[in-house]
Amino acid sequence: MKALVYHGPGRKTWEDVPDPKIVGSGDAIVRVDTTTICGTDLHILKGDVPAVQEGRILGHEAVGTIVEIGTAVQTLAVGDRVIVSCIKSCGHCANCRTGLFSHCLGDEGASGTGWVFGHLIDGTQAEYVRVPYAENSLHLLPPGVTDEEAVMLSDILPTGFEIGVQYGRVKPGDVVAVIGAGPVGLAAIATAGLYGAGTIIAIDTDENRLEQSRLFGATDVVVSGSPDWKQQVLALTDGAGVDVAIEAVGIPETFTMAIDVVRPGGTVANVGVHGKPVELHLEDLWIQNISISMGLVNTNTTPMLLKLVAQKKIPAAKLATHRFSLDQIMEAYDTFSRAAETKALKVVLSR
Amino acid sequence: MKALVYHGPGRKTWEDVPDPKIVGSGDAIVRVDTTTICGTDLHILKGDVPAVQEGRILGHEAVGTIVEIGTAVQTLAVGDRVIVSCIKSCGHCANCRTGLFSHCLGDEGASGTGWVFGHLIDGTQAEYVRVPYAENSLHLLPPGVTDEEAVMLSDILPTGFEIGVQYGRVKPGDVVAVIGAGPVGLAAIATAGLYGAGTIIAIDTDENRLEQSRLFGATDVVVSGSPDWKQQVLALTDGAGVDVAIEAVGIPETFTMAIDVVRPGGTVANVGVHGKPVELHLEDLWIQNISISMGLVNTNTTPMLLKLVAQKKIPAAKLATHRFSLDQIMEAYDTFSRAAETKALKVVLSR
Repeated sequence: MKALVYHGPGRKTWEDVPDPKIVGSGDAIVRVDTTTICGTDLHILKGDVPAVQEGRILGHEAVGTIVEIGTAVQTLAVGDRVIVSCIKSCGHCANCRTGLFSHCLGDEGASGTGWVFGHLIDGTQAEYVRVPYAENSLHLLPPGVTDEEAVMLSDILPTGFEIGVQYGRVKPGDVVAVIGAGPVGLAAIATAGLYGAGTIIAIDTDENRLEQSRLFGATDVVVSGSPDWKQQVLALTDGAGVDVAIEAVGIPETFTMAIDVVRPGGTVANVGVHGKPVELHLEDLWIQNISISMGLVNTNTTPMLLKLVAQKKIPAAKLATHRFSLDQIMEAYDTFSRAAETKALKVVLSR
Repeated sequence: MKALVYHGPGRKTWEDVPDPKIVGSGDAIVRVDTTTICGTDLHILKGDVPAVQEGRILGHEAVGTIVEIGTAVQTLAVGDRVIVSCIKSCGHCANCRTGLFSHCLGDEGASGTGWVFGHLIDGTQAEYVRVPYAENSLHLLPPGVTDEEAVMLSDILPTGFEIGVQYGRVKPGDVVAVIGAGPVGLAAIATAGLYGAGTIIAIDTDENRLEQSRLFGATDVVVSGSPDWKQQVLALTDGAGVDVAIEAVGIPETFTMAIDVVRPGGTVANVGVHGKPVELHLEDLWIQNISISMGLVNTNTTPMLLKLVAQKKIPAAKLATHRFSLDQIMEAYDTFSRAAETKALKVVLSR
């Protein structure tokens, strides 16, 4: 088959590789019908994720069709249309039993890591992918949900919702600021209303993204480059700050912005993938009664979010801005990596 | 009356000052029967809390007897024995209505700050103290609770419980590490079992304090100076780390220790009063699904903790190690500030 293979920092090729085979009795082989590219893939290509070895097939998001199953797979069948979750979960280990699939102890890839596709085992930017623990790591697709909608459920919708909205403990009437209106930030914006957020403020340097954020549920937008950005945010509160600040960029400056605008008693939910440490001013914050959360998505809300997507209550399709065939993946990477210029949110690749 | 007055960094005197008077109709004047000294008072004397002005009477913990009440006070009477809570709360503002008394917007001292005694208004290290919002800021003492027990409810018991155990989200069976076995750390140790902590590990450099911690409920102790302290802690878990790490010192090193020993999915509850920023390694932590909490006590669990102290289910009296009369306060400060040498936990001053 053809697949996108990582050959060290800055190097990737669309090349012939052996077809994947069933390894464990709980595996499934999925034909990739639709996949996409994540900001994390760009991090890998920069060399920021040294655990990814040369020769690895990239990608952790896909929708596809089961073509083969292991002998232990009972609840799925060849021909089923499925979402490949970005997180594998054995469903049986101590962490999976508490819903902490992000730290699944099942020994595929590495014990203690749920994110394995395109990281520790071969991923989804290929014609076929082997999915371990298929009964837990795949989600059967109901009729009426398109591939483009469904592929947003592999990673970005549950990440924005679980790590932004749920970890941020959004509650009815809250003022929620989302810093960074990229795909994951938009996913948080699109789902903050599920817990009753009253005001959802999108904050970004890019005015185009801010305009798009209104389509996903942002009630207000603030250009973060403006000198009075903080005053603009505070003016949308009672003056004390936002209840929840969701950081969806992953650099020290935006993390600090989140800390700066949260009110006493509020939460900073870090969603961004960071490459550097940040300075935390505990000498000011110890008295502020804030909490700071962070983490990798567990995907345990994927079934719930899938229902909402099927009911057209989350505008998942609007996240897809550019379309390519799977063999145009090099061009798709180019478009996605120049998102500020191309105005790309998610690029969708289909067979 | 006599009171301990702050005269700038390093300077305090036990001197004659005017008696406090009723100012607001919700005030009470309380005769101080028992007070104590907090580590925060030592911070003030070092000049670490610049909001404290020269001429301020120090102290935020006391048990006493009401000698005068304002015209609006209906639920308390002259002669009542009360705990003076370290936090004033008007009970009516937006923050008080959510239980966030630590950020009471009532305008005594400064709007938005619940901790006012010995900080923004005159405090409890005196023969008498004026207590604003008396019906909320005082707690009526039932018979059978001694002054020594009760004064631990002004600050340290609710602080250890709310900011350590509750913010740390301790749940049944958890492994809880408490870093720093001083009075507030011991308060966390003594109350972690209320939410079912299975293993409570006291960590300190001081072996005497570690031995004392067993009297408060520590199931295991680890000397933090030892080179294998972390391995000792991990050996008390399944190897992945503790569920909750409570930081009760307030320096970057101990905060980092807490981050280092918490498991994926766990919580670091910062209780310590910090004077410096810390480096937070988000480049490693973003994927770890931990949360970090911090804050000033709200004291909304004081009534519950008072019941438990009355039932002798929390060994509050054991926190008192040294006793002085109120006019020996300079000597008491000397003993408390040399705690490593004098083995002082709380020094109790009585009229």
